[in-house]
Parts: sequence; structure tokens; C-alpha cells
Amino acid sequence: MTPFERAEETIRRCRALARCSEDPNATTRTFLSAPMREVHALVSEWMQHAGMTVEIDAAGNLRGVYSADRTAGSRRLVIGSHLDTVPNAGAFDGILGVIMAVALVEQLDGRRYPFTIEAVGFSEEEGVRFGAPFIGSRALAGAIDEALLDRQDAGGHSVREVIGQYGLNPDNLAAATATPDSAGFLEFHIEQGPVLDALDLPLGIVDAIVGLTRCEFTFEGAANHAGTTPMADRRDALAGAAEWMVQVERLARETPQLVATVGRVIAEPGASNVIPGRCRAMLDLRHGNDAQRHAALEAMTTLAHAVGAGRGLRVTVEPRLDQNAVPMDPAMTAQLAAAVEKCGYPVHRMTSGAGHDAMIVASRMPVAMLFVRSPRGVSHHPDETVRVEDVAAALRVGAAYLEAFAHA
Amino acid sequence: MTPFERAEETIRRCRALARCSEDPNATTRTFLSAPMREVHALVSEWMQHAGMTVEIDAAGNLRGVYSADRTAGSRRLVIGSHLDTVPNAGAFDGILGVIMAVALVEQLDGRRYPFTIEAVGFSEEEGVRFGAPFIGSRALAGAIDEALLDRQDAGGHSVREVIGQYGLNPDNLAAATATPDSAGFLEFHIEQGPVLDALDLPLGIVDAIVGLTRCEFTFEGAANHAGTTPMADRRDALAGAAEWMVQVERLARETPQLVATVGRVIAEPGASNVIPGRCRAMLDLRHGNDAQRHAALEAMTTLAHAVGAGRGLRVTVEPRLDQNAVPMDPAMTAQLAAAVEKCGYPVHRMTSGAGHDAMIVASRMPVAMLFVRSPRGVSHHPDETVRVEDVAAALRVGAAYLEAFAHA
Repeated sequence: MTPFERAEETIRRCRALARCSEDPNATTRTFLSAPMREVHALVSEWMQHAGMTVEIDAAGNLRGVYSADRTAGSRRLVIGSHLDTVPNAGAFDGILGVIMAVALVEQLDGRRYPFTIEAVGFSEEEGVRFGAPFIGSRALAGAIDEALLDRQDAGGHSVREVIGQYGLNPDNLAAATATPDSAGFLEFHIEQGPVLDALDLPLGIVDAIVGLTRCEFTFEGAANHAGTTPMADRRDALAGAAEWMVQVERLARETPQLVATVGRVIAEPGASNVIPGRCRAMLDLRHGNDAQRHAALEAMTTLAHAVGAGRGLRVTVEPRLDQNAVPMDPAMTAQLAAAVEKCGYPVHRMTSGAGHDAMIVASRMPVAMLFVRSPRGVSHHPDETVRVEDVAAALRVGAAYLEAFAHA
Repeated sequence: MTPFERAEETIRRCRALARCSEDPNATTRTFLSAPMREVHALVSEWMQHAGMTVEIDAAGNLRGVYSADRTAGSRRLVIGSHLDTVPNAGAFDGILGVIMAVALVEQLDGRRYPFTIEAVGFSEEEGVRFGAPFIGSRALAGAIDEALLDRQDAGGHSVREVIGQYGLNPDNLAAATATPDSAGFLEFHIEQGPVLDALDLPLGIVDAIVGLTRCEFTFEGAANHAGTTPMADRRDALAGAAEWMVQVERLARETPQLVATVGRVIAEPGASNVIPGRCRAMLDLRHGNDAQRHAALEAMTTLAHAVGAGRGLRVTVEPRLDQNAVPMDPAMTAQLAAAVEKCGYPVHRMTSGAGHDAMIVASRMPVAMLFVRSPRGVSHHPDETVRVEDVAAALRVGAAYLEAFAHA
């Protein structure tokens, strides 16, 4: 099978798995939901066929092990991503990285390396069912706590109960932690953004996963009659928030690599004939460099206070989330870049604007990530797709990386 | 009783009526709700004591008639406002105009004019219970239709049913229409805005009630991942709406007498990590001159389309309400201004930014309105108040107006 044919087969498998869904008309597959059993059955079959021994750990992660050509002193390379999806998902977010791992082992055609390859399909990354993401990779990193196990889904079932109902034993979670020989984690993932497509590049090497600030800005003025209050006498909280939002966008445009989003805005009382007395706006701020992200937050806070001072509005800023950037392992990433170069593709380094399993696994072992172009940047949508030639490129790079890892 | 004492008594009565409420902790009195019976009982008592004959018409309007000193060929001056309130209301919006009418008749101390005085307390102006305002003044204007009678409140009761339950006969609504001798309607009302207070004036003469446009502006872009979509690749509907809102406010500030308010904004999907793909903003636009209001709407529509074109957003504009300005009767208003001047107060002419019963009654007879200063512009709030000396001034002007009306 040529890499191109194997890429076609990889895409075919991803699309087949997309039919394992809680929703007959769309792809929706949350943590240990019924269709996850079908996914486990199909992927296990492929893994076993490639020569792996397969088990499902206590967090519901599917783990296929392709042992080294020796038993003593060998290292282990973990390759994978997640098997769950958002509601009304596409066919490639997460899954591609799992099926790529299987394909890389298949490509070996029985040949063994002096290191173990473990292909992992994480049970949960999206955070849909329990409002808490990364259940699968947290288990691998040994970072599941009681609070997480007690979280309940909309039906009132806890993570612990759901694990038990799937036929797994939550008391065995410690055994799901990565084995001590694990020397690195490699994740293939679609970009889920438009950057590679705009640059006409098949692949991107992730340097870091951006740090994230989420902050609620509240503007308080005075609710008043929309008809009887002259413009000059107003303390309009929404007008102030709008002025600030325009400045936030301008600052983000002027700052390389920074993205700033106000995704949620609530004006109160929210009646068409009442000047808003209060407006709450949620700012989402991301940058690969934490210092630059903090500086941007400070600048946007200063802007908000200046807008407030000019309009007689009280401005309060409430932090909701402050998550540092997670750098990928420099040595592994350099190896990955060398593999890309060796295969004849342009080396493009970039930060990931979204969170990925690799950032959780990074607390346990060195990690690296390869992005595959997302045509038009579409993701979390049924139109999400990949190009065959890009997947073939990723497979070539993966093979070259395995070769290099053997000699590292 | 001096005008000052009568003003104190008027304020005391308004505050007493504020305790007739559906809510034990606030003033809330909607169309023909239980506490309206107490209001009718108290005001009827004051009307009768002043020499009026009282009835409640089929729309629930309280109508006290103080007959002329002659029976044949006499005209009638109707004076009044509304008895219902918004939820958590103040004590003066509407009520003051009814109690002023009673006080003006009391001031006559039995003396009769060659015209009949009718004091009216409208049953409904605020539109709270049925989402349709002016039920009371519509009945006086002969403008109640079947659709209005069929409207239902939150409990599923129609206007027609509620009238019946109050002990009135909705089939008699035609008889609620103003009598053919009605030659004018005079409404005293608190300003509900800060203009007179800012100018340190007790009274304002209303020239016109502003025209009103309500329009929903929808900005449609593309919902996308807040982390993976670079600033340059975004079609952020909320960012576009914010840019437009800043321009709307600037234009309104630059246009004399115009007020423009975005009181309601909805960004979708409304998740903090998703760039808004759609944003709907409700614009409320008011001006005393219809042509200027229409020109402002056109300018704001042009601005929205320009913002949309610059950002790749589709902009649609959906009209929701287009209500022309209602001029007060020039002759009656000139008479009212003459009365203000005669009493030694500054004549300040202004437009009303809010709707009032007078604008409905205007379809039936000449109307005029006198505003009483609202300290700090507070209204639709328990802190709503009036100054005794301002109410005394309005009583003096009312008495002078009656004197002038006799000779008009």
C-alpha cells in the first residue's frame, strides 16, 4: 500500500467512525456513550490486525501496544489523540490522530523498532458531557482527582458511575497512568484553523499551545428611559462596552499572534426602550507567550477603565481562567521538524490556539504535535475535512520520525 | 388652603395611592388588577367631595364630571392621565396628572365655569399586563378594536374577560368614547427625564411627543473558534455591531434633539470561546421631527452596511415600529404657555421623549401637556419624586389655564 493509499484508507476509517453517533443525523459522541463501544470495537480490530495488543483502561482510553524488538531497557513512544466529539462534529478532530497512529504501525508491516509504540485513543477531550475536558489524557498523566470523578452529567450520573456502567472499574484509574518507560507523546491533529490553508502548507509544527485568559468585564452605568434621557445625560453601559470592544479588537490586530474575542455579551435590563444600566462582556485572550498575554490583558483593562472614566461608568474585571501556555518539548519538536524537512515539506512552526491532549500529557513526558491542514479552517462542523495528500504527507513524516526516534 | 398646601395634599394623595399595589413591597398596579379597586374608591371619594359626579366607564377609566354653570351649548375640558403603573414604580407617573385634575376642581371651591370639567383617570397606559399600551385613552378616543380585546395576559385572560371580571361590560365600550362637547384635553405629567432639572425649571410645555422608530439590525458573519482563528481571518458579528453602536451614538450626539438607544443586544452562539457568528441589536430612535428621524435611520442603516462591507458581514434591517411624532394643539399649547407666563414662570418648550395618553387622545380633540420637573430625571423607580413648589406652580398654571379657557 502506498502512503497515498494508506492516507485514503485512514480517511475512510475516520469517516466510518463518524457514523458511530448518539445522533442518527449527525456525529455526536461524548464520554463513554453507547456508540463509543462501536468505535472501540472497530479501532481494536485494526490495532490487533496491525500486531498490537489492545486494552481499554479504567478511564475508557483505548490503548494498543506494539512491542519493541527487545524486552529489556526499551523506551516507549505514545502516539494518539481523542475519540470523543463535540455535538454535530466533523469526522477528523481527534480521530485522525488515533487512526494515524494505527496506520504508522501498519506501515511497519511487522517490522519492530528498539522502542515500544503505544497507540492511544483518549476517551474524552472535548468536555461536552461533564463540562470538564481531558478526562482521557488526565488519566494518562495521573491527574484524575475525586472532584472530577464526582462531576455529574445532565442526567445526574457521575463520571465514576458512567465508568462503572461501561463495564470498567474506576478504582483501577491509577493503573491507567502512562508506563514509566514512556519517553514521548506525539499527537497528530487537524489544525482547526485557517492558517496552513492560507499559507498553502500541508503541515505545521506546533511550538506551544497558547495560554488562555478568560475575564468578565462589567460596565455599570445607569438604566434610564430611552426616550426622555438626552444623549449628553446618559451613562449607557452597553455603549461603553461597545467602545471598549472596538479598542480590544484594534489592540489584538496590532499585536502579533494575539487573539482576543468577546463571545458573550449581556446588556441589562435588555429592554428596547431602556438605556442599558449594566453590561457584562466575557473576554477570551490567547497568546503563545504568557508575558505578552498578561501585558495585553493589562492594556485592555486600562482601556476599559479609561472608557469608564470618560462615561461615568464603573468598570470591574473578574478573572475566570488564567491558563499558562504549554510549550512542546524542544528536542522532540526539533526531531519532528527534521522529519518534516527530510520528507521535503516546508517547516512551518506555529502555536496552537486551541487546547489539545498533548498539553495535558506534557506534565508526564516530553510531547510534540503535528498539525494537518484544515481546508478553509472548518472544524467542529460536519464540513470539517482533510486532503488525502496532506494525510499522506503526515504519514511520511510519521514514518521518518519513528526512524529518527530509534536513533535518538 | 394655599396652593402650596394643596400641592402638599396632592403629593400626599399620590403617595397614598402608591400603597395600592399587587406587590406588598413595591408599587405595581396593572390594568384592572385588584388594587385598582382601592384606587378607584379613594379617587372617587375625592372627586365627589369636590362636587363631581363619578362613573367608571367600560374600559375601567375613572371619570369625574364637574358640570358647567349652564346646561346648553357648553364645551368640556378633559383633564387627566393614567392610574396604572409599571412594576416597581414610583408614586407620580400618571397619578399626579389625575390628582392634579381633582385638585384644580377643589380649588374652585364650588365655583362653576361656563364649561364642564371632566377629570379622567385612565385605566391603562403602561402596556404591562397585555403588552399593548394606552387601553384607557384608546377607549376615550374610540379606538379599541377586537384584536386588542382578544389580547391575553400571562394568565391567559383576555382584555375582554378582565373587563367583565372587574364588573364592567365590554359591550359598552362605545359609550366610553369622549362626549361630543369635549373641546380639549390637558395632561399634567412628570417629565421622567433630566432636562428641566438640569435647567432648574419647575415646568415645561410640551410641543410634541416624539416619533419613534424601532428597528432590529442583524449582523451575520461566521462563528469560529476563538483560539484558532487569527484576527485577520475573522468575520466577528459582535465586533461589527460594536463598531456600529459607537457610530450610532456619535451620530445621535451630533444631531440636536435626537436620541438613539441600543437597549437589547444578542450575540450568538454566545459562548466565551466562539467568535459570534450573528449579532442582533435593537435600535430605538426618537425625534420630534419625523423627517429628521427618518433621515437618522437612513444614516444609521448606511453606517451598518458600511461596517458590514468592511468586515464581510451581511447586514439586515427589520423595522419593528414606526410611529410618527404627535404635535400638541398649537392654540391650546399657546394658551398654556400664556398661563405659565402669567404665573411668572419661565416658558420652556420641549418635546416629550416618552409616549403619553395625550398622544392617543389627540386623534379625538385638541390636546396640550404640561411637564413637571423630575428631580434627577428619575422615573419608573421607587425613587421617583416631585418638589412641592413645582406641583404648586403647576396648580397655579392650571388655575390660570381654566380662567383663560373660559374666555377662549
